[in-house]
Amino acid sequence: MSQQTVIRVGILGASGYGGAELIRRLLQHPHADIVALGSRQYEGQAIGACWPQLAGLLPDLRFSDNDTVINTADVIFCATPHGATAPLVHQALTAGKRVLDLSADYRLNPDDYHTWYNNKHPHPEHFNVARYGLVELHRQELSGSQLIAVPGCNSSTAILALAPLAAHGLLGEDVIANIATGISGAGRAVAPALHFTEASDSVVPYKVAGQHRHTAEIEMTLGRLRTQGKALSSRSVTDKVPVSFNPHRVPMSRGILATCYTRPEQNNITTDTLLTLYNDFYQDDPLIHVQDALPETKAVYGSDRAIISVRKDDRTGHIIAFAAIDNLGKGAAGQAVQNFNVMHDFEETSGLNLGGVWP
Amino acid sequence: MSQQTVIRVGILGASGYGGAELIRRLLQHPHADIVALGSRQYEGQAIGACWPQLAGLLPDLRFSDNDTVINTADVIFCATPHGATAPLVHQALTAGKRVLDLSADYRLNPDDYHTWYNNKHPHPEHFNVARYGLVELHRQELSGSQLIAVPGCNSSTAILALAPLAAHGLLGEDVIANIATGISGAGRAVAPALHFTEASDSVVPYKVAGQHRHTAEIEMTLGRLRTQGKALSSRSVTDKVPVSFNPHRVPMSRGILATCYTRPEQNNITTDTLLTLYNDFYQDDPLIHVQDALPETKAVYGSDRAIISVRKDDRTGHIIAFAAIDNLGKGAAGQAVQNFNVMHDFEETSGLNLGGVWP
Amino acid sequence: MSQQTVIRVGILGASGYGGAELIRRLLQHPHADIVALGSRQYEGQAIGACWPQLAGLLPDLRFSDNDTVINTADVIFCATPHGATAPLVHQALTAGKRVLDLSADYRLNPDDYHTWYNNKHPHPEHFNVARYGLVELHRQELSGSQLIAVPGCNSSTAILALAPLAAHGLLGEDVIANIATGISGAGRAVAPALHFTEASDSVVPYKVAGQHRHTAEIEMTLGRLRTQGKALSSRSVTDKVPVSFNPHRVPMSRGILATCYTRPEQNNITTDTLLTLYNDFYQDDPLIHVQDALPETKAVYGSDRAIISVRKDDRTGHIIAFAAIDNLGKGAAGQAVQNFNVMHDFEETSGLNLGGVWP
Amino acid sequence: MSQQTVIRVGILGASGYGGAELIRRLLQHPHADIVALGSRQYEGQAIGACWPQLAGLLPDLRFSDNDTVINTADVIFCATPHGATAPLVHQALTAGKRVLDLSADYRLNPDDYHTWYNNKHPHPEHFNVARYGLVELHRQELSGSQLIAVPGCNSSTAILALAPLAAHGLLGEDVIANIATGISGAGRAVAPALHFTEASDSVVPYKVAGQHRHTAEIEMTLGRLRTQGKALSSRSVTDKVPVSFNPHRVPMSRGILATCYTRPEQNNITTDTLLTLYNDFYQDDPLIHVQDALPETKAVYGSDRAIISVRKDDRTGHIIAFAAIDNLGKGAAGQAVQNFNVMHDFEETSGLNLGGVWP
Repeated sequence: MSQQTVIRVGILGASGYGGAELIRRLLQHPHADIVALGSRQYEGQAIGACWPQLAGLLPDLRFSDNDTVINTADVIFCATPHGATAPLVHQALTAGKRVLDLSADYRLNPDDYHTWYNNKHPHPEHFNVARYGLVELHRQELSGSQLIAVPGCNSSTAILALAPLAAHGLLGEDVIANIATGISGAGRAVAPALHFTEASDSVVPYKVAGQHRHTAEIEMTLGRLRTQGKALSSRSVTDKVPVSFNPHRVPMSRGILATCYTRPEQNNITTDTLLTLYNDFYQDDPLIHVQDALPETKAVYGSDRAIISVRKDDRTGHIIAFAAIDNLGKGAAGQAVQNFNVMHDFEETSGLNLGGVWP
Repeated sequence: MSQQTVIRVGILGASGYGGAELIRRLLQHPHADIVALGSRQYEGQAIGACWPQLAGLLPDLRFSDNDTVINTADVIFCATPHGATAPLVHQALTAGKRVLDLSADYRLNPDDYHTWYNNKHPHPEHFNVARYGLVELHRQELSGSQLIAVPGCNSSTAILALAPLAAHGLLGEDVIANIATGISGAGRAVAPALHFTEASDSVVPYKVAGQHRHTAEIEMTLGRLRTQGKALSSRSVTDKVPVSFNPHRVPMSRGILATCYTRPEQNNITTDTLLTLYNDFYQDDPLIHVQDALPETKAVYGSDRAIISVRKDDRTGHIIAFAAIDNLGKGAAGQAVQNFNVMHDFEETSGLNLGGVWP
Repeated sequence: MSQQTVIRVGILGASGYGGAELIRRLLQHPHADIVALGSRQYEGQAIGACWPQLAGLLPDLRFSDNDTVINTADVIFCATPHGATAPLVHQALTAGKRVLDLSADYRLNPDDYHTWYNNKHPHPEHFNVARYGLVELHRQELSGSQLIAVPGCNSSTAILALAPLAAHGLLGEDVIANIATGISGAGRAVAPALHFTEASDSVVPYKVAGQHRHTAEIEMTLGRLRTQGKALSSRSVTDKVPVSFNPHRVPMSRGILATCYTRPEQNNITTDTLLTLYNDFYQDDPLIHVQDALPETKAVYGSDRAIISVRKDDRTGHIIAFAAIDNLGKGAAGQAVQNFNVMHDFEETSGLNLGGVWP
Repeated sequence: MSQQTVIRVGILGASGYGGAELIRRLLQHPHADIVALGSRQYEGQAIGACWPQLAGLLPDLRFSDNDTVINTADVIFCATPHGATAPLVHQALTAGKRVLDLSADYRLNPDDYHTWYNNKHPHPEHFNVARYGLVELHRQELSGSQLIAVPGCNSSTAILALAPLAAHGLLGEDVIANIATGISGAGRAVAPALHFTEASDSVVPYKVAGQHRHTAEIEMTLGRLRTQGKALSSRSVTDKVPVSFNPHRVPMSRGILATCYTRPEQNNITTDTLLTLYNDFYQDDPLIHVQDALPETKAVYGSDRAIISVRKDDRTGHIIAFAAIDNLGKGAAGQAVQNFNVMHDFEETSGLNLGGVWP
């Protein structure tokens, strides 16, 4: 599209953390104009009522209902809960709008959705146009699409860490993804365990041993990588790669570190070879930085990049792959805007933050 | 200047926190091109050796020595320590470069510098061109200037909280500025008290009872405000307003909250009147947000704005004024870039962050 | 009492933070046997259902209703909310039990209670036996008492910081108490502002300018100190000392630092003289440590002591007094157990923690 | 020993974190009298010069040199660095003193020490009397011993999580220990990465892929468990169990969570069976709490217990074992005092903290 193009965008669920970070990126985006913000709780109020860090910005806008957002904007970002989002997607698509869906409602295929979300999908008719927006693996099918399902934060991290291994036949029989995640991953809703006094100084495992739904995306995508290499198709069905996915909450606001383990049959590969393989795999991806040093979450705080590294443990034969992202950046709002860019053929990094906020 | 203008900028002290945040803002600045980064410690190394959050960015640049920075760039940001900076400013001015000095070396007048910094100033000849870059109060004298002294982080916070009172004759006999500041204010140098395990869970008063040098800037500027109203002159000498300035380190990376107390002779003023007065005082300042709600530091995390409010305590007669900034944003790198913009007649907020990073 | 004496104690409100810290201290107390824990929410459940850090301890005890606690124990600790506590105190006193009340219900006199708590007191008949349990100032009237009102956490901190000044006629016309307090001060109830992601990295002023109810205890006690010296009487009525009390939430679980300002008429007093005066004032108090170095909250984390220091600002004439406590130690459970000890003539520090948990 | 016995104890390395926590426990220990504290850095100074949280306690004691500590006390706790400790142990044993060594110098056998610490051991003659003080597994050989090597913090956590599996033949071919550890594990020495501003908000993998020396203790002890069941002998040599041990620093002062993975050949075991097996294995261990709920580090903050749980992942066949400890409690000072108790036939929990500090 022309570099003068400006798209009228609206955000559903603008009072959640994903919504806040979409606003911040789209405010600085050269091709986006925020025309509507949806929130039932804050309807009719100014942005500062919900978001202290944005108080006084967008002074002419008030939170509105979902219908207003869908009617006013041409591209709709859905930062609404899974289950509640599919009907909104349906409404927006029917009205001829393009949709970037940050919920889980169109990430899987209908059967897997049913298995993992215990829910009959209300609008399965849109799965055929839905694209899985892990841009690095699906870029070629995203331009011009009507509906992009933005991947989950944990899923993105684990997949990006393991993708080069999967594509090169380097996954062993066991694949383990040990995840450390910041507390904003639980959203803005209050709960005793998320109270500052209860969450600080604590590492807390949760939904371990196959209970976390992000497992489904990881197993699906690693399966595709194993058979298709890097450029994947959202509607292909392949055998899955079983993954033991185990998340832990750690006392920080943001950030995910995935530490992934597998022991490939081929035992003579070295750390250096693996690093070369990773660098090659991601060489054309502006939001992926592969480095020799082990990644840490602070390096991606407020950033939309993923930082990745890998090690071979010569004593035990394991490959250990590491990826760090900001769960609200590459894990949510940043990835959504990256998809918005690719959808419209804008520069892939428009409106995004490459450098992190440090210290 | 033309909207196509791009200035070649260099940063001295690019391996400190001020330097890192200058890089992040100038990377996204439409009128700046980072051409040199100075650091003795990292000379010859890529940016990622020093800054994990910027690894892989500016891939063609290596840290260099100070001479190279001054020779290569047309505008020099000095994020170097006080005392060590004046000679660099001298060198840059002599070479015909413009300077934004984040150190304390040209903020005061020579006599006050001598009093507070126990140091004969090595280059007092540049004081006559130096401007005190608290933009909201000095904007009219900053355009086209050669040397801008960027104010201290604590000073900026306390001055912005108290300025409307000083300009309107509402300071009482006692003025107290109680400051809570994040730990990055101490810089990147390691010290036992800044160790995570020692600094966490602790509120620590330090340099209280008139020992902190930022006191000098506050007393000087409140004195000018009392006699000159809002538009101040950097070289004017007025009576100072004595201030009891008492900082406390709190366990967070960034942010300063100033809680300022004074009891004016005029006892019948109300909170509502004060809020109106503050809103009027700052109505044309894009980086100042006055609000009814009390400010909190998280609302300016990663932002270049100040958020300000005020209360009247009807029981005791005190006015309590509050200001929150990010010490590395409006307190350092953001304010420096704001000055860079005004110096060159660019839009005042170019390259700056209005919204904060939340959560 | 005999060193073999063991008192049967019960705790009402045992599922709140004050309750948890009472349990921890009374578990290690040589003269206490925990025989009942009250909690409506956890009634019938084991201790681990409520408190992960105590799971498996007191294996034979279940949470019970309030009647059971009052009937089973001989001394009742009330860690229940203000307003709800007075009827429980009444019930316990009527049953002949002794009471340590951590709520605000018997700290003031009935009139002040009415003013600050907007509430007609349901059982004013017990005020005549109630003692205000700031042990350092009221020790002589606490032995053998039936009902001790344990002071508020903020009140204790500010009073301990200012008491020597008040007793020695060193308070000026203005007295300001600027408070930084950890987040557990807000209790265990969830609220959006207490969410880890919202509270971290933030200093948040709240209930400033005379809105916080702890102001009443401070003004009452400073008034008594001014006229009575150190040994105070709980039922005396004196002129109050007006105080501007302004609390700020800081991102840590525990701890309160009070920074108190006053400018006495006598301007020639020095820091050294003040330190001597403070040391003398508290020389017989085992839970008070006066030191030259400025106190910090981490030094009292998990401890039941207060650490205090003082400075004279010779530039402005202010005295600045500092006190640090753990809001759940000397500010709540520790102070309650200290009162329990004095009530029964046990060693004042029995069951208490002197050293803090560091790092 | 008699319940009136009081042992004269001294602490070498009393200015480190292990030393501080030893002081806190021994101050409240009914059978210990702290008679000497060693520190080169603080020699001649009072305890408050080094430890703000202990200021004013032990007022008659000054830090002294190592010789004085060894000569004055009857039992010596060595909280000194590995490598530097063996000569001190030698000196103390030669002087007829008993030693609790918190360093790594006598944990392994001489050959393994050489392999992992790249160091010829200066005093291998004492290995034959050294006992490995993981009390739960070695209790029967610790009473009356002269030299106990207190296990490493990470090692203790991983071993306690995996011990019941190893003893029951439930370890598969791969054993992975993913560790999240608080920052005090790095000690009190300052380093840029441990600065509050750099360590906060970051999960940082380090010494992964077989580089961390604690691996040796884990492999040794799991090997013994596999062949000997629960009651182990410190000088037995068995085949080791290869373990992929990978630690991560997380932004909290204290605490370790081990998440351990293995896939046993026997695939039909259930979570319930595993929990029963764990409860049985640890039923006589007062510092081990096995529970159904997943453990979190906050529950052991300031406590000397380990909290353990286990899960079967029926989708992948993995057993996932979890253990949480305070690295300075059960991981260091608490375990040392536990060993001191067993060494002298005192009650195993004397002077120890069972309940944790919450919130």
